[in-house]
Formats: sequence, structure tokens, C-alpha cells
Amino acid sequence: MFRVASRIAARPVAAAASAAALRVAQPVFAAPAFAAVRHASRLSAAAKEELDDELSNERVMPQLPEGWTVQHKKGESRFTMTKKHGDEQLSIICQLQVLDPEVAERRANGDAADAVEHFPFTLHIVRGGKCLDFSLTHADGELVIDGMTHYESAAVAQDDSAEGEVRKERHYQGPTFAELNSGFVDAIVDYLEARGVNDDLSTFVAQYSYAIEQQEYENWLRAVADFTA
Amino acid sequence: MFRVASRIAARPVAAAASAAALRVAQPVFAAPAFAAVRHASRLSAAAKEELDDELSNERVMPQLPEGWTVQHKKGESRFTMTKKHGDEQLSIICQLQVLDPEVAERRANGDAADAVEHFPFTLHIVRGGKCLDFSLTHADGELVIDGMTHYESAAVAQDDSAEGEVRKERHYQGPTFAELNSGFVDAIVDYLEARGVNDDLSTFVAQYSYAIEQQEYENWLRAVADFTA
Amino acid sequence: MFRVASRIAARPVAAAASAAALRVAQPVFAAPAFAAVRHASRLSAAAKEELDDELSNERVMPQLPEGWTVQHKKGESRFTMTKKHGDEQLSIICQLQVLDPEVAERRANGDAADAVEHFPFTLHIVRGGKCLDFSLTHADGELVIDGMTHYESAAVAQDDSAEGEVRKERHYQGPTFAELNSGFVDAIVDYLEARGVNDDLSTFVAQYSYAIEQQEYENWLRAVADFTA
Repeated sequence: MFRVASRIAARPVAAAASAAALRVAQPVFAAPAFAAVRHASRLSAAAKEELDDELSNERVMPQLPEGWTVQHKKGESRFTMTKKHGDEQLSIICQLQVLDPEVAERRANGDAADAVEHFPFTLHIVRGGKCLDFSLTHADGELVIDGMTHYESAAVAQDDSAEGEVRKERHYQGPTFAELNSGFVDAIVDYLEARGVNDDLSTFVAQYSYAIEQQEYENWLRAVADFTA
Repeated sequence: MFRVASRIAARPVAAAASAAALRVAQPVFAAPAFAAVRHASRLSAAAKEELDDELSNERVMPQLPEGWTVQHKKGESRFTMTKKHGDEQLSIICQLQVLDPEVAERRANGDAADAVEHFPFTLHIVRGGKCLDFSLTHADGELVIDGMTHYESAAVAQDDSAEGEVRKERHYQGPTFAELNSGFVDAIVDYLEARGVNDDLSTFVAQYSYAIEQQEYENWLRAVADFTA
Repeated sequence: MFRVASRIAARPVAAAASAAALRVAQPVFAAPAFAAVRHASRLSAAAKEELDDELSNERVMPQLPEGWTVQHKKGESRFTMTKKHGDEQLSIICQLQVLDPEVAERRANGDAADAVEHFPFTLHIVRGGKCLDFSLTHADGELVIDGMTHYESAAVAQDDSAEGEVRKERHYQGPTFAELNSGFVDAIVDYLEARGVNDDLSTFVAQYSYAIEQQEYENWLRAVADFTA
């Protein structure tokens, strides 16, 4: 069986100029049923091999900033953090990003333009049943504020069902931060800093994202090996 | 306490070449609890100052085109308009757009390429229990038709729950307008014009969007001042 | 009544430099009620004319690859395919893509950069109550693997309600394919090939998408002609 160039292409976006393509080599003379068994085993073995490779690397968990606890449910692409601050309850939700496959490939090829990774996350500050909802991002080692929404009802802010998400999209999202005056923005930055929401925290968010990604990747390899055994 | 350059960065998109970053100045020696109180008050005061500033500006509400009524619920980032036309019921839903923070920053910096603002909205024409659903945009002073969907059931077209939105995404969306022949498009334009759906209407949609945005921004400033008091 | 240039513009995206615009000619002296009737009839007639045009073209349905069955419900922008493979149940869901209007216009104007069409689809392989979920795309005549997710519960993987979609977004999506080593990717390619998931299958998906699009466009023309009669 001769295999021609076999590589994975980026998922093309609508405006994509070209799509690198995956050439699927044709099995030449194996009977289908036999081939199915053989290939299944081959994928299972390949997944196990990758898993052994991954498990041989040392794992370092980042250090949790003081006052915070962190929760992650196996199988999920998100984790949450919580902290008390006086009469306020702070919580963070970080959803691991799925890279656009095209960007991923450019990055894998060393295209510098896509080198900066971004870790967007949400911070809720709940006080007296109301909620400030911050859209934040860790990028280039620093914390960036993207937006700030106010909810009269913390329950509405924290409802992450599909219906809840739709309701939140229809809620006023707050002003465009780029248009705010810098004195006001400084006051917001200080407000967050006083709650320990700063570069160090967002650096942890980024590092913990990597750690979760790694754990989930290993679970995935195990599951693929089992499924295709 | 020395503050270094503190500015807000655009929310980075996956392909973004660089992210302007917000440097969070570190408070140097304040005790945390004391700092929290002080900073909270400072943000509350800054929000009140912004609010006073906004309230000192004269407000002009745009004039509603004849035959239409308009509805907006406080706290929501959308408004609706309705009108009778013979045996037809027309309704418009306009959702305020959240600018991509990166585009917002380029625009704030005077980048001409992003200078044109767009106001997408939906028009439903209901007749005999069925519905034509138009995707429209106001841009550069003019009305643009983006798409036109037909629903056998107006109730399905107007179900804007999360489940309803998913069902609509799976409904045939209608042809790509750029591929339609111009005579047919002219007939659609005339059909809309006969119902008062034209440049004047979409200009109102854009102006009313600004007015709503302003109202909601003021409410937001009030809420932020209260929350952080 | 003099009509000036009347053409349809692309729906502008936020970053769009300019929006080609639709100029809506103003009717000069027709009474509104009369105009409404006249224009309605004109649109209905124009839709019928387009329909006759479309129906005069010969229609060729692509040939279904062996072992698969295909299902499409009238009015929907998606179709599904199913196949048994040993103790596995394979199913494909293909959602017709709505072109970004701006891309559509560039393409209609012959802009080569947007010439490649992409047909993303999902493949579920269910076995023993669990599920492998592949994100695939047909582009440039070839099958491309975008992603591969594992679900402990096939019921979760196949729940396409709004709540189900949100739950799936929060499930670990699997690794970035561009970062996997090529030997492992080859094993995945072979695994799919052994199940008849290859260039030929994805070519069918693309061709069937065109056929469904055409059928739905004709139904849409019929519905528009009726609605505006």
C-alpha cells in the first residue's frame, strides 16, 4: 500500500483564499471488512502511542493566586474560579478556545502574525443580588478589559442555559471601551486590581487553560483508543 | 502611587496580529481592605462624573416615520417597530451591535477603513399566517437588502426563544442576493418601497439606535455608580 | 418613473471598508394603496418568471455512494445521511452555508480569492452508546478533517436542540489537528477511509448541497409568488 502526501488542512473560512487539502490515500486491494478491523486497530494503537508520549512529559500545575478556588469537570472545555471579597462574590468562567483550523495551521507553520494567543474569560462580581459582568482577555502577558455589563439580577447574569444566553445577548452590553475616557477606565482598572483581578490572575487563567487542555487531550486519546479498539 | 500608561485594548480576534494591552498599575503599599473601599468609591465617583457630563448634552430624538410605532424596554439592546399595511402586519427588530473591540479601537484612532457604521435589522411582513423575513442593513445612508426568507408559519418566524432561533437557522434562508438578476431585485425593492421600507426608514433605525444606546449608557453609568458605591 | 442604478449590496461586516449600496428609487406620484397592489403583483410576476426560468433547466441528481441513505425535509437548509458499518451507526449532518453577503458579492464579481467553495459537515460514528464526532469539510475536490470530538454519550452528541448545542460547545472539542503528528493523522484518515468516508463521499455532499439548494430556491420562488400575489 503506497501512501501519497497525507496532511491535514485548515478548516476554510468563507473568505479563505485557498484550502490546503488532505489527500486520502486509497487502499488498493484489501477487502472492506478486513480493512475496517485492521484500520480500527491501527488508530487505537496510534492513539495509545500518542498517550504514552504525552504521559512521559513532566506536568507542572500553575500556582493558584491567593483567595481563589478553581473547579473543572472532566470532559468540559471550561473551568470556573471563585473568591469572596467582603460582601461580594467573585466568579470567573473560562471557556477554552477552539482555534480556527486555518489560523492553527498558519501558527503551526510559524506565521508570526498569529503568534499571540488570547484567553478570553468572564468575571462576575455579585453584590446585593446584582451583578457586574466583565469580559476580559489575557494576551501578551497582560490583562485586557473588553467590556462591562450590569445586571439588575445576578440570577439572569449567571443563567448559562441556551435561553439564558439568548436573554443576555439582548441585554444592554455596556459601552464600547475604546470610546471611554482614560480617567474613567483607570478607575475601573483600580477597582479590579483591588479585587486581585490583574495580570497575575490572568496569567494563571492562561496557564491553567493549558493544563486543562493537556488533561483533556490525554482523556481524549484514551477514549479514542477505547472506541476504535 | 505611580501610574504608567493605562489604556484599554481591543478584544483580540483569533487572527489578530497584535493586541494593544492594558497595563494594570500595581498599588504599592495600600492595605487590601482599605484599598477596596477607596477604589470602589473612586469608580462610583468617576461613573457619576461621566453621567453628569452625558446629561449636560442636549438630546434630540429622531422623528418616527409615519404609520410606525416604536417600542424599547429599558435595559434591552434591541427595539422593535410595528405598522399595519392593508391586511399585512409589518414589524422590525433592531439589535444594537456590539463592536468588535479591535475594530472599535481602530475606529477610535481614526482608521478610515472602519469608518462606515452598519445597522442590521430584521423586517417581518406577516400576511395570512405566513411570513416574509427580510435581513436589512442601513449603511452609508442607504438601505441594503441582505436576504429574504419565507416561513409557512409566522409563529415560527417570530419565535425568538433559543430553540426558535436554532429552528430558524435550519430553515432555508433564501438565495444569495448577489446572484439574483437585477430585474427581480428591483421588484423586491419596489415591494418594500410601497410599504415605506426605504432609505428614510433605515435612517430612522440608525438614529434611533444611537438614541437608545445613549439612554442605556446613561442607565449603565447610574447602575455602575450605585453598584460600586 | 425613472429608476437610477439599482443594485444589491453585500451585507457589510463590521470591518468592511465600504458597502456597495442599494439605491431605492422613489415612486413619484402613485397613490400608496394603488402602488402597493401594483408592486405586489409585479414582485409575484417576477418570482414566477424566475421560477419558469429555473424549471426549464435540466436537473441532475448526484449518485448516492453505496451503503448510504439520504434524508432531506422540505424547507430545511440541512440534510442527513446514514449508513451501517458492522456494529457502528454512521450519520452525517450537512447544513447549507449562508454566504456572507460581502463574500458573495466579491465572488459574483469574479474575485478569485473567494473562488473556492467549502462544504462543512458533521459525521457521527456511534458504537456501544458512545460517539466519535468528526468536523469535516469538502473543499477543492477533497475531504478535509477539521476536528474530532469524543462523547461518552451518543445521546448528548446527537441532541441538536438549543440546549444540546450549548452543552456540546462546553464539551472538550478535541485537539487542534494542525498540531497533531502526521502518523496519527494518517491512522485517522485510514479509519475514515475504511468506512467509505473519503473524497468521493464529500464530493457527493457538495453536489447534493447544490441539488437541495436548487430545490429550496424553487420552493422559495413559488412561496414568494404566492405571498405577494
